[in-house]
Amino acid sequence: MVGSCNSCDNCSNNLENYCPNLILTLASIYHDGTTTYGGYSDIMVADEHYVLRIADNLPLDASAPLLCAGITVYSPFKYFGLDKPGMHVGVVGLGGLGHLAVKFAKAFGVKVTVISTTPGKKKEAIEILGAHSFLVSRDPLQMEAAKGTMDGIIDTVSAIHPLLPLIDLLKSHGKLIMVGAPEKPLELPVFPLLLGRKTVVGSNTGGMKEIQEMIDFAAEHNITSDIEVIPIDYVNTAMERLIKADVRYRFVIDIGNTLKAF
Amino acid sequence: MVGSCNSCDNCSNNLENYCPNLILTLASIYHDGTTTYGGYSDIMVADEHYVLRIADNLPLDASAPLLCAGITVYSPFKYFGLDKPGMHVGVVGLGGLGHLAVKFAKAFGVKVTVISTTPGKKKEAIEILGAHSFLVSRDPLQMEAAKGTMDGIIDTVSAIHPLLPLIDLLKSHGKLIMVGAPEKPLELPVFPLLLGRKTVVGSNTGGMKEIQEMIDFAAEHNITSDIEVIPIDYVNTAMERLIKADVRYRFVIDIGNTLKAF
Repeated sequence: MVGSCNSCDNCSNNLENYCPNLILTLASIYHDGTTTYGGYSDIMVADEHYVLRIADNLPLDASAPLLCAGITVYSPFKYFGLDKPGMHVGVVGLGGLGHLAVKFAKAFGVKVTVISTTPGKKKEAIEILGAHSFLVSRDPLQMEAAKGTMDGIIDTVSAIHPLLPLIDLLKSHGKLIMVGAPEKPLELPVFPLLLGRKTVVGSNTGGMKEIQEMIDFAAEHNITSDIEVIPIDYVNTAMERLIKADVRYRFVIDIGNTLKAF
Repeated sequence: MVGSCNSCDNCSNNLENYCPNLILTLASIYHDGTTTYGGYSDIMVADEHYVLRIADNLPLDASAPLLCAGITVYSPFKYFGLDKPGMHVGVVGLGGLGHLAVKFAKAFGVKVTVISTTPGKKKEAIEILGAHSFLVSRDPLQMEAAKGTMDGIIDTVSAIHPLLPLIDLLKSHGKLIMVGAPEKPLELPVFPLLLGRKTVVGSNTGGMKEIQEMIDFAAEHNITSDIEVIPIDYVNTAMERLIKADVRYRFVIDIGNTLKAF
């Protein structure tokens, strides 16, 4: 984001991301009437309130996705109190958001379990990212054995998927936090929520103050996104690969070296 | 409830109602192996921890439904911080739970809006119960005008119904609290939750400590349930009327005067 109303309750509470008049870096209309082009532009005008300081030890390319995927998973850990050692948090989906959720969970000292439809991601989740355990969501026995063990779940999946097995993984008073946005409504069984005062809640990115806090935390714990750097003329191919989920885990466009040349 | 495990996290936190080994007053197995018969019995054995003190100024018959319907709506007001003057709370459905939610809201000094499919309930809601406003949920214009105005909504409806219009009534960070239990899953649109960090959460009754607090609060504010007292031999007819929602708002069986006679 590069702007907001600066006067609503959310803006007054460092939650510019929930401002109804938020100006996004991409495809929004800025105060001066121009369209914002986000990461596809070589320059951008922004109010200083929306400019962040990236610590010297963070590489700019691998830090870029922190400003969206990073804060999107960091914010719910903090807001819902899931950042305390001893907590057990599930992460549904191991992609751009999910792999950062695992990295932050480990830095918080939280036990983290990756939940995925793809058994093949177990090695990556545990051996490379260091998740404590891995659940195949389509394996009823594994899911049954893990029932009632999690304080919270960060669900990064944008595809239609069943919520009941995830709600069942939660302890009483656990929170299922949706950070992906499926296009169609999901089926919500209400009775299982009632039985344990369980919550389903949506969360998107974070406010400027929290983003700076997240960046500083990432710098302290050497957290960056796994990325593939591409030149600007590869963008259309990258889009095709994105549709096939063929990226580990974020494309970053090298604007400085390739946009002007192109 | 008349018993629980007394050792789990919930029991240790005065949340016996969320104990996985809860013993209900009705149709549960008590510690001694006998079946509990709830409000259909003239005597019941219970651990003193599960016995409540009813203040002298509360009539026993009209207070009886407080122990289920009353605490079911009181608890979410308190737990989710919706009991503060200045708050605006919606109540979906004007029945046994709903009419008590309106009474508690008014005692808390909270602005309360009844939301119902039935325009005919407006008079009852506003003139008799004193709700501040009334929305016909099937009227898109009324619902549109009330968008983004509520801090929380207590949804007492057990029938299948759309959640999106209710989510839209909430302010950013608002909470939709489900206290009814529809038999089938409801459709949950996720994106509207994300946009405002909005919550859908289930809640059922309350712990013993909170029930006593609710009873004492009801005594102080003269809150009782609207009831129809019936003899035990009317029970089957009452069940038929319940199916047609033909009761304002709770049947109470006069066990003392009619069970032995019958």
